[in-house]
Amino acid sequence: MARWGLMSTEANATRSDISGSDREAPLLVRACRREPVPVTPVWFMRQAGRSLPEYRRARAGIPMLEACRRPELVCELTLQPVRRHRVDAAILFSDIVVPVAAAGVSLRIEPGVGPVIDHPIRDLADLRQLDGEPDLSFIDQAVRLLVAELGDTPLIGFAGAPFTLASYLIEGGPSRTHAATKAVMHGQPELWHGLCQRLAELAVTFLRTQVAAGAQVVQLFDSWAGALSEADYRRFVQPYSTHVLTALADTGVPRIHFGVGTGELLAAMAEAGADVVGVDWRIPLNVAAARVGGDRAVQGNLDPALLLAPWEVIEAEVRRVLAEGAAAPGHVFNLGHGVLPETDPGVLTRVVELVHQISAAEASQ
Amino acid sequence: MARWGLMSTEANATRSDISGSDREAPLLVRACRREPVPVTPVWFMRQAGRSLPEYRRARAGIPMLEACRRPELVCELTLQPVRRHRVDAAILFSDIVVPVAAAGVSLRIEPGVGPVIDHPIRDLADLRQLDGEPDLSFIDQAVRLLVAELGDTPLIGFAGAPFTLASYLIEGGPSRTHAATKAVMHGQPELWHGLCQRLAELAVTFLRTQVAAGAQVVQLFDSWAGALSEADYRRFVQPYSTHVLTALADTGVPRIHFGVGTGELLAAMAEAGADVVGVDWRIPLNVAAARVGGDRAVQGNLDPALLLAPWEVIEAEVRRVLAEGAAAPGHVFNLGHGVLPETDPGVLTRVVELVHQISAAEASQ
Repeated sequence: MARWGLMSTEANATRSDISGSDREAPLLVRACRREPVPVTPVWFMRQAGRSLPEYRRARAGIPMLEACRRPELVCELTLQPVRRHRVDAAILFSDIVVPVAAAGVSLRIEPGVGPVIDHPIRDLADLRQLDGEPDLSFIDQAVRLLVAELGDTPLIGFAGAPFTLASYLIEGGPSRTHAATKAVMHGQPELWHGLCQRLAELAVTFLRTQVAAGAQVVQLFDSWAGALSEADYRRFVQPYSTHVLTALADTGVPRIHFGVGTGELLAAMAEAGADVVGVDWRIPLNVAAARVGGDRAVQGNLDPALLLAPWEVIEAEVRRVLAEGAAAPGHVFNLGHGVLPETDPGVLTRVVELVHQISAAEASQ
Repeated sequence: MARWGLMSTEANATRSDISGSDREAPLLVRACRREPVPVTPVWFMRQAGRSLPEYRRARAGIPMLEACRRPELVCELTLQPVRRHRVDAAILFSDIVVPVAAAGVSLRIEPGVGPVIDHPIRDLADLRQLDGEPDLSFIDQAVRLLVAELGDTPLIGFAGAPFTLASYLIEGGPSRTHAATKAVMHGQPELWHGLCQRLAELAVTFLRTQVAAGAQVVQLFDSWAGALSEADYRRFVQPYSTHVLTALADTGVPRIHFGVGTGELLAAMAEAGADVVGVDWRIPLNVAAARVGGDRAVQGNLDPALLLAPWEVIEAEVRRVLAEGAAAPGHVFNLGHGVLPETDPGVLTRVVELVHQISAAEASQ
C-alpha cells in the first residue's frame, strides 16, 4: 500500500467540476459549503440497510463483505433509499472494514455482531496483514455505475477513521471498553503509530478512489471516538484523522466528520479538517455549532430511537432540530446515528417530506 | 410495595450517628461532605468482582442473583477488596436488579450478558410484576454482618436509578440503543410514569434498608443515563432520581450519583440531589466540578481501560486525576466506570497506595 505522506497514484482524484462557485451544485454540497440553500438537505446514516424490505430481499443469502464487493449489488442497495425516501444524497453501500479487507486482513462481518478479525493485531509483526496493495477496482466500478444512475443526486463517499478501524483490528471485533486498544495506544507507541499510519493511508486511498469516480462529498466515520477523553483524542487520534481529511483538501470535495458521543470532541474533530461536523442526539445543534467555533456546517441530530415513537413526537423533534440547526452557517439534516433496523421506512419518508416542507417555508419567509 | 410519596416503614432509617460535625467520621464521609481530609479516599466501582481470584473461587458455581441473596457470601465478597487493596470504603456486593427481583419480577443475570427479564414491560398490565412487597431481609442481614466486620471502614449502600432499571425492564436486557425505552418514554407517558414511580419507591426502600442497617454513604447508579439528551433527561428521568435522592435526605447519609457518558448531564444530576457527582473519564474533574456549580464533591475518574497500560502511564494518570480533583470542594478517587474483569488486582492495590501517598504529601504541605 501507499506509504505515509504519499498519495496513491491510482486514486489521485482531481478537483471535481462541482467545486468552486458553481450555482448548480447539489443542495447537499451547497449546505456543506455554508452557501444559502432554498431547502435543508436531508439523508440518513444507514439509509441503505435492514429497515428496507427491498434491502432484505436483495441481500438475502449474501454475506455482507461479499455484498460490498459486487458493484451491481452495491449500486442497487445504494439507490434503494434514494428511490423510496427521495433523500438529497446517496451514500455508498459499504462497510468501514472493506478497505482493510482489501489490503489483506482476514475478517468476516457477522450479522448482529459486526466485524470479526481472524488475527487481531497485537504486535509489530501483525502489521504485515495491512501491507497488501488494496485492489479497489470494485469500488471504482460501483461508484461509476452509481453516478450514472443518480443524475442530480450527489453520492457521499465514506471511510472509517483510523481510531475506529484500529479498535476493530486490535480488539478483534466490536468492543464496549476499547481496553486493548487503549493499552496499545498508551503502552506500545510504535505499534499504535504504525497501525494508524497504515489505516490513515488506506482511508485516503479508499476516499480518493471514490472521489475520482464521482463521489461529491465524503464522510469520515470515527464511530467510537467518543470513548476517548479529549486529551487522548488529541494526542493519539486527531493527527491521523487530520492526515486523512487534509489529504482530501485538493479535491475540493466537502468533508463530513462524525462520531457518536463526541460532544466533548467536536472542536477537535472540526480542527482535524472537517467542513461539516456530525453530531449525535446528546447535544443540541446550536450548542454543537458554538463548540466547533461557528464557522463549520453541522449535520444531525434526530435521535434514531425516537423514530419508534408516535408521529407527533417525531414531528416536534424535526422542528426542533431544524430550528437549532439554523444557528450554524450550514445544516445537513440527518439522524444522530444510523437508522435502526426496526424503523418503519414509511416514517423515514415522512421525515424527508417534513424537513423539505418546513425548511422551504422558512427559506421563503 | 410502598406507594409514591410514602416511606416504607420497615426501612425507615433514622439519622445515623456519623452525621453532623463528628470529627471521627470516615475519610470517605468527610470528603463527601466537603470537609478537609488528610488523605484522599479511594475505592473502585466493581472492586468486588471478577478481577479477584478469591472472588472467582467464592462465586464458583453460584448464579449471580443467588449469590446476592446469601448474606454470608455477600459479606465475604464485599470484604475481599477491602482486605486486599486497603480501599477506604466497601460497597455492598449486589446488583441493581436485586430489588426488582425481590418485588416479584422474574429475571436472571446471565454471565457476560447481564440481566435478562422473562416478561419485558410493554403495557400497564405488565406493571403488576412490580407490585409485590419486597422481602429485603437478606440485605438487612448482609449489611449488619458487614458493618460488624468492617470496623472503621464505611460501607457504601447502592441502588439502580429508575431510568436504568426501566431500560432493563422494557428492553428485556441490556441495550445499546434504549430504543424501546425511549419509545415508551415519549409515546406511553402513563406507562413510563407508572413504571418510574414504582422503581423510584423501590430504590428508596432498598437504600433505606441499607442505611438503617448501617451503610454510611449511598450511591445511586444511573448507568445508562448518558444515552439521553439533557432535555429528555430533565423531562423524563430527573424527577424520579430527585425523588429517590430527596427521600434519603433525612438520613444525613451522603449521596453519590453516577452514570457513564454523562458529561452533558452533570449539572442536572447534581440538581437531582447529589452531594457527590460521579464522573467517567471523558472530561477532567476540574471541568466536571465547574459544570456542577462548584459546590459538590466529585468522584472519579481514572479510565478503567488504562489500568491495562504500563505502570508509568497509570502513575501519570493518577497524578493528573488528583491534581484536577483538587479543583472541587471534595474528591473521592475512583475509576470512571467499573473495574474490568481482566484487570491485574496488583495494579489496583498499587493505585490505592499511590493515591494515599500523593494526597498525604499534598495535604501536609
